Amino acid sequence: MCQLLALNSNQPAAITFSFEGFVARGGLTDHHRDGWGIAFFEDTGCRLFVDYEASITSPVAQLIKHYPIKSTNIIAHIRRATQGKVSLPNCHPFMRELWGKYWVFAHNGDLKNFHPELSGNYLPVGVTDSEIAFCYLLQSLRERHPHREPCRAALFASVQEITREIAGHGVFNFLLSNGDAMFAHCSTNLHWVQRAYPFSTAQLTDCELSIDFRKHCYPNDLITVIATKPLTSNEDWQQFSRGELNMFVNGEIAEQYKPAAERSKPVVLAAVPHAC
Amino acid sequence: MCQLLALNSNQPAAITFSFEGFVARGGLTDHHRDGWGIAFFEDTGCRLFVDYEASITSPVAQLIKHYPIKSTNIIAHIRRATQGKVSLPNCHPFMRELWGKYWVFAHNGDLKNFHPELSGNYLPVGVTDSEIAFCYLLQSLRERHPHREPCRAALFASVQEITREIAGHGVFNFLLSNGDAMFAHCSTNLHWVQRAYPFSTAQLTDCELSIDFRKHCYPNDLITVIATKPLTSNEDWQQFSRGELNMFVNGEIAEQYKPAAERSKPVVLAAVPHAC
Repeated sequence: MCQLLALNSNQPAAITFSFEGFVARGGLTDHHRDGWGIAFFEDTGCRLFVDYEASITSPVAQLIKHYPIKSTNIIAHIRRATQGKVSLPNCHPFMRELWGKYWVFAHNGDLKNFHPELSGNYLPVGVTDSEIAFCYLLQSLRERHPHREPCRAALFASVQEITREIAGHGVFNFLLSNGDAMFAHCSTNLHWVQRAYPFSTAQLTDCELSIDFRKHCYPNDLITVIATKPLTSNEDWQQFSRGELNMFVNGEIAEQYKPAAERSKPVVLAAVPHAC
Repeated sequence: MCQLLALNSNQPAAITFSFEGFVARGGLTDHHRDGWGIAFFEDTGCRLFVDYEASITSPVAQLIKHYPIKSTNIIAHIRRATQGKVSLPNCHPFMRELWGKYWVFAHNGDLKNFHPELSGNYLPVGVTDSEIAFCYLLQSLRERHPHREPCRAALFASVQEITREIAGHGVFNFLLSNGDAMFAHCSTNLHWVQRAYPFSTAQLTDCELSIDFRKHCYPNDLITVIATKPLTSNEDWQQFSRGELNMFVNGEIAEQYKPAAERSKPVVLAAVPHAC
């Protein structure tokens, strides 16, 4: 399996602190040594860094640790290969263009007997089930909305339908972003934490590093961090339910789906406008 | 205008030496300060680095200068904006997927009254004429060969036809690669040099740096470097004719087109097999 990390915020934020702990899992505190990658949206552009070296030794990872690229949507991934050899084309995140926007995707899990018919608009370059799932997801979004990107609510509904279909084939924890919104789906294991005023100090679990967010954040900042396993020992990480899909916008949940069995739990939706 | 740099070779090679001189043109010895980018193919994967900072000050460019990523196909670009503001989505090279391969494109020039009908398979994310040209080029290739990549000769013929159409709108010097072949087209200004046995010493024109390739290359290495302007002062750089399109494979010209007026000049085609 692999591990996922994402950031969604209302102001461009650096992920250097969380990335420091995450990278340690790529060979130091955990065994995800088969490559890594990170994508930063800036404006409508995207910087994508991928490497098949273990993140703990990769020169590119060292750059990212010390170069505070600020973004409102960031997706990172460290890989432990289950399908596909250790090579660059099999490293997540993957990137494609749809409706004149870049879309970025990273997956943690394993899909069985998943051989969707791909029409050719999006074809995998590597040989992972993850990239096939991403291609099928984008192809299906395009089939549902062939001319332009729909409003957020309709987009969320489409992503949810396609996710449910793919998740029927196995473990499908994923992160997906188009630079506006961050989709996060949990099959088995995913957590998130929101950092907001009044900010406090956080301590990484994977290395001896803490940060006092009061020195780095403004009162209006809202920053959500999503990770396979909590990265800090003293923050209020919330666990996703199995089957839960969230769309984060500006650091808050804008749309949410939970399977029926989970709906008795309270669901708080942020007041993010998304009129169709 | 902008400047282009490419490498095509028969064995993975580093571009650090040529890149050192090229980067100097991004704010030190020339005025191309409006962003830069570089793409390295490895296996079927691709590492793409883009930055809107001047290449001479960019931390990512510093990484590339000191991190010898080896590749048989590399495309780099430094930008001086003529269309589109200085921002990440307007930085070259651009990358898309076609027929299950990544395609990378960088352009030097300016296209006028170029508003092709884009069907939606490839849409620009930024606002440059260059990205529109790339989208139209891939769309046209897909229309001509909807199911799979054709053989090299047919691919070259299609790229040449589409190039001629786009070049009717203005200056269209470009580099294009799918990881197998490197296409290079000249409207106004493009040069190339082949480094082969017996290797010698080369001296950069843009900074005080020389290299003795005899210490870095094997006898069978064939390395072609393409650049808007020659990067070294003591190598046999050849100037492209206006309208010339070359497809380099394994460090040699595999296919070539020159307009009729240029055909009286001798053309040497390497014996690269490309049976359809």
